[in-house]
Amino acid sequence: MTKRDFLAVEDWSPAEVEALLTLAARIKRGEVTGGLERKVLAMVFLDPSLRTRTSFETGMFLHGGHAVVLEPGKGSWPLETEDGAVMDRDTVEHVTEAARVLGRYADALAVRAFPRASDWATARQDVVLRQFARHCDKPVINLESSRRHPCQELADAFTLRERLGGTRGKKFVLTWAWHPKALPTAVPVSAALAAARMGMDVTIAAPEGCDLDPEDMQRIRALSGEAGGGSVSMVHDQAAAIAGADAVYAKSWGPVSLYGNPGAQRPWFDRHRDWKLTAERLRSSRGGKGIVMHCLPVRRNVEIDDAVLDGPNSLVVDQAENRLHVQRALLLMMIGSRR
Amino acid sequence: MTKRDFLAVEDWSPAEVEALLTLAARIKRGEVTGGLERKVLAMVFLDPSLRTRTSFETGMFLHGGHAVVLEPGKGSWPLETEDGAVMDRDTVEHVTEAARVLGRYADALAVRAFPRASDWATARQDVVLRQFARHCDKPVINLESSRRHPCQELADAFTLRERLGGTRGKKFVLTWAWHPKALPTAVPVSAALAAARMGMDVTIAAPEGCDLDPEDMQRIRALSGEAGGGSVSMVHDQAAAIAGADAVYAKSWGPVSLYGNPGAQRPWFDRHRDWKLTAERLRSSRGGKGIVMHCLPVRRNVEIDDAVLDGPNSLVVDQAENRLHVQRALLLMMIGSRR
Amino acid sequence: MTKRDFLAVEDWSPAEVEALLTLAARIKRGEVTGGLERKVLAMVFLDPSLRTRTSFETGMFLHGGHAVVLEPGKGSWPLETEDGAVMDRDTVEHVTEAARVLGRYADALAVRAFPRASDWATARQDVVLRQFARHCDKPVINLESSRRHPCQELADAFTLRERLGGTRGKKFVLTWAWHPKALPTAVPVSAALAAARMGMDVTIAAPEGCDLDPEDMQRIRALSGEAGGGSVSMVHDQAAAIAGADAVYAKSWGPVSLYGNPGAQRPWFDRHRDWKLTAERLRSSRGGKGIVMHCLPVRRNVEIDDAVLDGPNSLVVDQAENRLHVQRALLLMMIGSRR
Repeated sequence: MTKRDFLAVEDWSPAEVEALLTLAARIKRGEVTGGLERKVLAMVFLDPSLRTRTSFETGMFLHGGHAVVLEPGKGSWPLETEDGAVMDRDTVEHVTEAARVLGRYADALAVRAFPRASDWATARQDVVLRQFARHCDKPVINLESSRRHPCQELADAFTLRERLGGTRGKKFVLTWAWHPKALPTAVPVSAALAAARMGMDVTIAAPEGCDLDPEDMQRIRALSGEAGGGSVSMVHDQAAAIAGADAVYAKSWGPVSLYGNPGAQRPWFDRHRDWKLTAERLRSSRGGKGIVMHCLPVRRNVEIDDAVLDGPNSLVVDQAENRLHVQRALLLMMIGSRR
Repeated sequence: MTKRDFLAVEDWSPAEVEALLTLAARIKRGEVTGGLERKVLAMVFLDPSLRTRTSFETGMFLHGGHAVVLEPGKGSWPLETEDGAVMDRDTVEHVTEAARVLGRYADALAVRAFPRASDWATARQDVVLRQFARHCDKPVINLESSRRHPCQELADAFTLRERLGGTRGKKFVLTWAWHPKALPTAVPVSAALAAARMGMDVTIAAPEGCDLDPEDMQRIRALSGEAGGGSVSMVHDQAAAIAGADAVYAKSWGPVSLYGNPGAQRPWFDRHRDWKLTAERLRSSRGGKGIVMHCLPVRRNVEIDDAVLDGPNSLVVDQAENRLHVQRALLLMMIGSRR
Repeated sequence: MTKRDFLAVEDWSPAEVEALLTLAARIKRGEVTGGLERKVLAMVFLDPSLRTRTSFETGMFLHGGHAVVLEPGKGSWPLETEDGAVMDRDTVEHVTEAARVLGRYADALAVRAFPRASDWATARQDVVLRQFARHCDKPVINLESSRRHPCQELADAFTLRERLGGTRGKKFVLTWAWHPKALPTAVPVSAALAAARMGMDVTIAAPEGCDLDPEDMQRIRALSGEAGGGSVSMVHDQAAAIAGADAVYAKSWGPVSLYGNPGAQRPWFDRHRDWKLTAERLRSSRGGKGIVMHCLPVRRNVEIDDAVLDGPNSLVVDQAENRLHVQRALLLMMIGSRR
């Protein structure tokens, strides 16, 4: 049997994703125990984590398994990621050996690697994640790479369905927000993919020039087409976009055309500090009751106002909770003993 | 049911504390197993730990549960603690979201947050700990805050009773010790509270000007009064204080009136370098056999001499061991399945 | 019963080592479960780790136990290691207390402490490791000290036997390799000890002046003599050494005579950058099929070429996997409930 990785949700078939969401719902109702006895998940964090680490570690434990948490460059050796590198400088271990060895100890590997390359053409390759997947002979889970955050995407899909019931034709707004840093696009793309897959009317609202990767946009449109009944549009007016929205997903990201170019990013960002989700702006959502989503961590009063986060529309904590349920389903489907 | 936190021992009733100490004794005798199956404790360390982390992680495991250890600013996101903050600088996640989310994954939260504020009036509010308690809908355990170290307090109470038998009317000396840093007052206050609660004659020996928080002093006196049979006094002569002592608890702390004022602390500390617990000084304890306590970590030959720490009077390692037993009792009472 | 530490393989009898390797083989075949229920291993890492940490944590879990991972100076207090120190500077806790306290929480202690002293005469004392062993009343496991890496040594012995079958009289070449840093000698000495113990013809190939500790060399020769049938020689020609080799163990180390002397190390190292294990050099091994070993992490294209590491001769990943099996055997023999 060839191994199945989980690097992006779209690598799995719609039926598999559907089965996972159904299993996650049973898990959330407390109907599923065990299945990961004597199973080990090795987690490699090249970037920080609160939800991801805690929910995976908890998920493994709740089903009888165990997660080992590694932080290369902190407690473990700094990793080299370039193929063919002559390793006579700072990196001590090549990702090749790390991936191969961890594959001998663990039943699956999970890797978080944010973009590091100085240009987007390189960053979008997800080199580190793909090297782990290539060299490890056990399944590899993407804990957020340059291009995708598929565990978040599953949680977003689960949350949308849980709260909106039928999602087909409902209005999903992904709105850009100002942020002091130019963040990666993995989360906004994954959120839009989740909504498109569920047949929603997806509106992406962002200031002019705040483009996403063209191939990612194409994928969002393709998924929407396959789902049927929905649509995808890009607009530049936050207030207009939110009007009539069933769900508003606020998230900041850096325009991919300015990736790795801080000199150009700064003035561009400075012009758009007013992109913030406020209670007032939310009033025009459907019945004023549009649900508010965010992957967390969120910059309070910068991306979203306190009044929204602490108010009745906000689902951000439920969304985070759902990470646990979908990931337990993911682990059971990938390495569970009762597959 | 409203949740019960454990932020200070005095938040619990005397009967509850008594029940906890009784359960801890049964645990120490090996009579209690299980009770935390499928339970998760999320531990948030904003400051370092050896005993606290190891004993809680071990305690959860011994009863079938699991502890997740998080270090914001290291492996997880740096936390914002100010209410209403506009988070456009270094902090990435607000304690509000961290507390709410961890409450969805775990059955209880445990938080270590030493004082950080530049003035004592602010530090004594225990803002970080209280924010976690306010925003998390699961029970929160204080792993040492600005004002209290209640798990240490339980271990101190357990150790005093274990070694002295009846504690009523016995002499407990909390003696200040010199230290290169101005340490928080949580441990000395907690130690005095433990002894006062058990009806001991509490003598606090410290150089002139080494005051504790007035409200904390009041609480120590109040507890002593409620217990009956004991007393509380403050003296400035270490040798005289130790004479006839049944228990000598050595501990350094910075005078609260000089809190956050290094310029004034330095000359004050320099005048009192002779406050050190030596074997000679201990000879005047009751029969020369007064037990020596310290919360650890201890600065050898600075707070206490090698000869004392390695000699027959020292109980510091038993005290540390007892952390494990009282905390297992605490966890079973707070989140155990057989409550 | 006095406690048995595992600081060096040669502290155990040949029969004990033999029993351990036999048990490890049964473990690798999946024939052994349980035995560490309710057992806790406290691991203290003063230096980084990937394999050691993951394999021990996994090993404890697979048999029902739990490993606590501590990193003094990061999440836990910086340790003082000098006896009699007046601790008025940066170190906050003495190894004495850390060892005593961890011995109360855990069933065994495991310590990694690379050399830190400025001179070899001091470094070779393994002070930190020995202090942990002296002060902890539970068994202590060496996770690599200045002088030995006994868990690696067990894995090396297991791997040699697994791949070569009868080892007696087979040719084992330990070859020095260039490296940007002067590394400790623990691994090369342990590898040579493993081969000598198994009666192999041990050739140590290194540039002139690249000496190992004389007492360690004596120990290698003594073990070889006790095993019988083998030999030990030191040569300065890598190509000649590899000719006819059954096993080639590549590893860099700093000459002990230049220990702590960077000014003299630099020019010495600069002269020997050609010591690298290449595919070409390997062709003269027995039938071109000599197995290639390395403890990992390995500097690719510096110590060993990509073509070798990714080729059919390389056993480095199996070697790493075998760490898990021999350590599970070690733990079962040291603290298992069915001893």
